[in-house]
Amino acid sequence: MASRKEVADLAGVSEATVSRVLNNVGPIKEETRRKVLEAADRLGYQLNAIASSFAKGRSGNIGVVLPHVPKVRLFSTFYFSEILSGIGEAVQEAGMGLLLLYREPGAEFDYLSLFRTSRIDACLVLGATSLPEEERSISAMADSDMPFYVIDQKYENPGIPSVLADHVQGSYLAAKHLLDRGHRSIGFLNGSPHYSNSRDRLEGYRRALRERDIPFDERLLFEGNYSRKSGFEAAEAILRVLDRLDAVACSNDRMAIGLIQGLKEAGVPVPGRLPVIGYDDSDAAAFVDPPLSTVRVPFYEMGKLAAERLMRELSPAAKAGGSEAEAGRIEILPTSLVIRQSSLTAKES
Amino acid sequence: MASRKEVADLAGVSEATVSRVLNNVGPIKEETRRKVLEAADRLGYQLNAIASSFAKGRSGNIGVVLPHVPKVRLFSTFYFSEILSGIGEAVQEAGMGLLLLYREPGAEFDYLSLFRTSRIDACLVLGATSLPEEERSISAMADSDMPFYVIDQKYENPGIPSVLADHVQGSYLAAKHLLDRGHRSIGFLNGSPHYSNSRDRLEGYRRALRERDIPFDERLLFEGNYSRKSGFEAAEAILRVLDRLDAVACSNDRMAIGLIQGLKEAGVPVPGRLPVIGYDDSDAAAFVDPPLSTVRVPFYEMGKLAAERLMRELSPAAKAGGSEAEAGRIEILPTSLVIRQSSLTAKES
Repeated sequence: MASRKEVADLAGVSEATVSRVLNNVGPIKEETRRKVLEAADRLGYQLNAIASSFAKGRSGNIGVVLPHVPKVRLFSTFYFSEILSGIGEAVQEAGMGLLLLYREPGAEFDYLSLFRTSRIDACLVLGATSLPEEERSISAMADSDMPFYVIDQKYENPGIPSVLADHVQGSYLAAKHLLDRGHRSIGFLNGSPHYSNSRDRLEGYRRALRERDIPFDERLLFEGNYSRKSGFEAAEAILRVLDRLDAVACSNDRMAIGLIQGLKEAGVPVPGRLPVIGYDDSDAAAFVDPPLSTVRVPFYEMGKLAAERLMRELSPAAKAGGSEAEAGRIEILPTSLVIRQSSLTAKES
Repeated sequence: MASRKEVADLAGVSEATVSRVLNNVGPIKEETRRKVLEAADRLGYQLNAIASSFAKGRSGNIGVVLPHVPKVRLFSTFYFSEILSGIGEAVQEAGMGLLLLYREPGAEFDYLSLFRTSRIDACLVLGATSLPEEERSISAMADSDMPFYVIDQKYENPGIPSVLADHVQGSYLAAKHLLDRGHRSIGFLNGSPHYSNSRDRLEGYRRALRERDIPFDERLLFEGNYSRKSGFEAAEAILRVLDRLDAVACSNDRMAIGLIQGLKEAGVPVPGRLPVIGYDDSDAAAFVDPPLSTVRVPFYEMGKLAAERLMRELSPAAKAGGSEAEAGRIEILPTSLVIRQSSLTAKES
C-alpha cells in the first residue's frame, strides 16, 4: 500500500498538505485538493475505510437515521425530540451538521452507502427494532468498522455499540412503587416487543412481581404502540378486567395520558379507582390532570453521550489509537422514579 | 458557454447521461459520473448557480438552519418540532435528507457557503429574527437566487420568500374571544419583538381593542421569551397589576402554562379569578389543568408547504420555467380559535 509521502510526491505537494486534504481541515485550493485526491486514488492510498471516506471529502455531517411512520410526527414525541436535542447539542458544539434520514421500519437499509457516498462521517440509529432486517443492516456497519451508535436498542451482536437507558430498573421501580402502596394486581401496558427497551420494561415489571412472590399473569398485559391514541384504545381492554386490577403501569407517558383520558370518559377516576403510573417523565407529565407519576429517563443525555462518543472516535487521535477498542461498547444510563398524583389513591394525594 | 452536447461528446457519453449525472438521478457508475463532471468542468458548462452546485454533485439534502440557544431543547418545543415534522415529511417523500445546522442568534451567518460547498441543495430558515445581521445574511441568499424559504418570519425585503401563519388574525381572535365574554382590561404576554410573528400578534391584539374603542394601555403588556419559565416569571409582574386585569392573552401555550402555574402558586385561580388564553394549540394544551383555550397554528403544514415548494423549485422543470417568478412569494396560512376551559370563568366552564 502506498505511503503518504508517495501521494505527496505524485501530487507535487507536501505531506502536510496531503493530510490536510484527507482530513479536510483548513482552507485548501480546489485544484490542490483535486490533485491530492487523484494521486491518492491512483496509488490506492487508503488508511482504512473511514479514511477512504475522508479522501472523497469529509461531509462534516453526523447522520441520524429515523424510522418513517406515516402520520406520526416523530419530532413531536418527547422520546425523539429529547434524544435529538441531546445529539444536536453535541453536534453543534463540534461545529458539525446533523443529517436526518428516514428508513422504512422493519426493512433493510443501506447504511454503508451513506458512508461510501460521503453523505455522513458517522451514524446514529434511532428507533431501531430487533427485526432481523434491521439488525442485519446495522450489523453491516459493525462488520465494516464504520463509526456508529444505536440509541436505546440493544442487539445480541456484541459488535453493535449502543447507548441505552436502564429500562429494566425503571420499569421495576414503577411496578415496585405500586406494590409498595399495597396494590397486588398490577396491569402493564407495554409497547411493541420488537424493541429491546419494551422487553426490558417487561423484565423489570416481572422482577418486581417475583420479589413479592406475585405470580405473573399474562391476562394483565396490554399492548399499545407508545402513542396516546393506543393508550386511549387500551382503556377498553383494561375496563373489561377492571375488577381484577388494582393499578396500571404504562411504558410511556403518552399511553398513560391516553389511558387516563379513556378511563375518565368511562367514569373511572384516576387515581381514585385506578392508580396509573407513566414512564419517560415527559414535558407534559407535571401539567396534566392528574399530574403523572412516572419514571425519568435521561433521553437528552443518551443522545448527547452517543454523539459525543462518535465524534471522539472520529478524531484523528482516536483513529490512530485504535477506535476498535472503543467499539462494541454498551453504555447504560440509570432511570429514576418521579412520584406525582396519578399513582396515589385519591385519599392520599 | 458550452452546450450539453459538447459535454457529452467530450465525456464520450450520451446527452441523457450528462443530464442524469448533473441532476443526480438514477444509479450511475462512479467512473461515468467522474468523466461527465470533468468534461463539464473543462468546458465550463454551467446552467446557473444551482446547476453549478449540481455539477459538483448534488447533495440530496435540504438544509434547515436553526438558532442555537444554550440549554434550550429546541426539538422539544412544540413550535420547532411541528415545523420540523412537516419539513421531514416532505423531505422523506422526496427521498432527500434533512441537514440541520445551527447558527448563532443575532449574528451573521454564511448561508451561501452551504450552497457553494454543496452541503445543501436548498435551505429553510427557522426561528429567524428581524435583527439586521440576520436579515442581511438571509438577503444574501435572495440576491444570489438561491432556493430557500424563511418560515414564520417576514422581512421588508420583498425578495425574501416566506411561509407564515396569520398571527395578526390569531391574536385578534384570542383577544376578541376574551372581549366577547365581557372582559375589558386584557393583559397581553408577548414574546420578543425581534420576531415579526410577535409584532403581528401585538397588532392583532391592538386591532381587537380598537374595534371596541378600548384604549391601548402599555402597562398591560408583558414580555417573555416563549418559554414556560418566562411565563412563570411573568406571573409576578401580572400579580402586581391584578386589580386592573380582567383576563390575559399569551403568545404561546408554554408561557400560558407557566403563567397559570405561577398564578396558582400565588393563590389566584385560573379561570376563576383570571381567565387565560394561550396560543399554538400545542400537544399539551388539551391535557393541562385547566384545559387551555388557545389558537391553533398550522405549524406542521407550514413546514411541509415550505419544503414542498422548495423541492418543486429544485426540479428541472421549475428551473427551466424560471423559478424567479416563484421567488418573492409570501404564503400566509390561517389560524383559528380553540376554546377549552382556561378562558372561561369558573361558573361557566
